[in-house]
Parts: sequence; C-alpha cells; structure tokens
Amino acid sequence: MTHDGRRLRGLRSRETILRQAVELSSVEGLDGLSLGRLATATGVSKSGLFAHWPDKEHLQLDAVEWAVRQWTEQVVGPAMRAPAGVRRLFALHEARLTFYRDGVLPGGCFFFAVQAEFDDRPGAVRDRLSRSMREWQGLIRGMVAEAVTLGELVDDADPAQLAFEIEALGEMVIVHSRLYDGAQALVHSRRAVLARLRALCPDPELLPED
Amino acid sequence: MTHDGRRLRGLRSRETILRQAVELSSVEGLDGLSLGRLATATGVSKSGLFAHWPDKEHLQLDAVEWAVRQWTEQVVGPAMRAPAGVRRLFALHEARLTFYRDGVLPGGCFFFAVQAEFDDRPGAVRDRLSRSMREWQGLIRGMVAEAVTLGELVDDADPAQLAFEIEALGEMVIVHSRLYDGAQALVHSRRAVLARLRALCPDPELLPED
Repeated sequence: MTHDGRRLRGLRSRETILRQAVELSSVEGLDGLSLGRLATATGVSKSGLFAHWPDKEHLQLDAVEWAVRQWTEQVVGPAMRAPAGVRRLFALHEARLTFYRDGVLPGGCFFFAVQAEFDDRPGAVRDRLSRSMREWQGLIRGMVAEAVTLGELVDDADPAQLAFEIEALGEMVIVHSRLYDGAQALVHSRRAVLARLRALCPDPELLPED
Repeated sequence: MTHDGRRLRGLRSRETILRQAVELSSVEGLDGLSLGRLATATGVSKSGLFAHWPDKEHLQLDAVEWAVRQWTEQVVGPAMRAPAGVRRLFALHEARLTFYRDGVLPGGCFFFAVQAEFDDRPGAVRDRLSRSMREWQGLIRGMVAEAVTLGELVDDADPAQLAFEIEALGEMVIVHSRLYDGAQALVHSRRAVLARLRALCPDPELLPED
C-alpha cells in the first residue's frame, strides 16, 4: 500500500471511530467515553485507538469537533439552501427537528447530552462546548439580523432574544419527546417557533400557515 | 435517648444526606452518586449510608423524591400565593428563575442534569423522572386552563402547547447561563414568557409591562 493509501485508510478509520464516539455520547454522555469503552463499542483495539488519541480528553475534543461538523452539514447546510431571511431562519429550525425526528443520533442530540454534563466542569471540553454554543447562537442571531435588514422581520426584533427562544424551543424537544410526550414535542416546537416568527414578520405569507 | 428521639435523629440525618445528594447530583448527575462517592462528600460512613439505602438505585430514587419536594416548596409554593389565573402562571415562572438566580443548587437545576442523563436509560429512575415531568407539565397545563376559565387567557390558548413553551424557556436558562451568556439568559427567559402571556391575555395589565 502506498503512503497516501495508508493515510487515507487511517483517516477513514478515524472518521468511523469518531462517528461511533458521537453516537455513543449522545446516549451515555462524553464522560463515559473512555478509550476502553470505545474499544469495546468499535471493536478497535485500545492500542489502535491510542494511535489516534493520546488520552480521553483529546478523544472528547475530537468528538465535539465531529459533532459540530455533522450538525453543520445536516442542519445548517439544508437551511442555507432556503432564501436568506425569515424563510432561512425557519428552515434552520425545521432542519433541526428533522435531525431529531429521523433519529440521526441514537440519543437524539449530542450537544444536549454533553452540555448538561460539562456545564459545571471547567476545562478544555467545557470551553470547546461553550465556543460551539457561541458560534451557533451567533449564526441564529446573524440570520435574525439579516431578516430584519431584508424587511422580513420587524425592526425591533431582538436577535439575541430570538436566538435564545429558538434554541430553547428546539433543544427541549429531546427531553420532552423521550421522557414525556413523544412526537408531540416536535409539533409543539415547530408551532411555537412558527407562531413567533409569523408574529414578527410583516409579510407572514413568506412562512407556512401551520 | 428515647425511641422517638432516635427516630427523629435518623430522619434528620437522612434529610441532610439527601440534600447533599441532590446538590451533588445537580453538578455531577445521578449516575456518579455511588454510596462511596456520597460517603466521601457527607462524611457519613458507607455502612451508615447502607442503613438508609440498600443500593444505589434506592438512593437515586429518594434523591429524585427529595428534589421534587424541594421544587414544590421553593417554586410551586410561592406561585400558589399569587392570585389564580395568569398572575399565578407567571409567578410560577418567576419563582423558577429566582431558584436559579439564587443558586439554590450548585449545579443550577437537579432535573436538568439528571433528565439529560437518564432520558435514554430504561429503569426505575427514568420512570420516576418521567412521572415528575408529567406531573410538572400537568401543573402548568392546569394553571393555563384555570386562566382560560377565568377569562385571563384567550379561549384558544392551548394548555399543552404553552406548558411546553414555558418549560423550554425556563429550563434552557441553565445551560445558557453556564456555557454562554450568564445572567442574560434569565432576562431572555423572563421576557419571552412574559411577552407570550401578555399576547394571550385580554387584560395585559394583570401582568408587569417588562
């Protein structure tokens, strides 16, 4: 095998392991993600994993990175195909709900599982999660501001306020659907964000009625 | 010491241990709550803990029970002193935010920490958490229905929809304030619920303006 071939094979196996790490963490959290636990789950030897990650924290950080990329591709990507403005903002929420409804991750959402776990634990993982939330909230705020500029949301729509609300109404779907009322949580989440955006939109016909 | 005296002392020490268990779990989750971990945290010997709880699951279940009682006393209690209707509904949200802002629990919210942990784990703890969420949502739905009956919310206010929204906008404060924007999350949460209720209230003067 050529050097490039070996390198490609290494990257592929690294990708596969990280995917499984993120899937596992969406259920069990990142803290249970020891190299031993991951070796059992993936069938890769512990020494094989050591070749990629010297310790648990490096693995956890790479898992966060992988989860951010997955979210960007599967949630942000589809939204960016909608026209800029209020339609893109709502498309982002719908893409998130689709991600949840399709059960892309067995635990529903990697970030929900690990934010609750690390919000009180100072360190590199918490810092990385904090940055990903800042970037995610920044993305939503930017879409709100763009919709205001385009005249598709009223001038006094507050980007930070709306970004908080959309995030809350989206993320709560995970625990509600699992512990309480199943698919109904998706319906409530969609309806809440839609009503909020329609109320702030001078031309509500840009959005579905329900 | 009399038999009653011993019994009372046992109850008090049980209370103290459960309080520490709930405080600890609000930070670390319930899964880390082994009898050994709790013995270290409380200074009570493991055999002393065994006298109260035969195993970890019994301890976890009693911790949930204690947390429900704390929430009932410190969040529901103050709300019940407000007049029935939309004012009580908003008082409930404000009491929750006060609970968070005062840092009653070091991790902010016991339920947030443990719901994320147990939503994917079938068993007695998950069932107990599911029941507590059902009861909590039932309480909010009941307050919404009461406000509708009193003419303080419009007839088509949907209790289950509003209960979902209020819960989402409340619970998200924990992770937002810890990972992202601190006290600003409390402001956003209060503002969102207030605006939502005022919009559905035929007599918005029942509620503060902001």
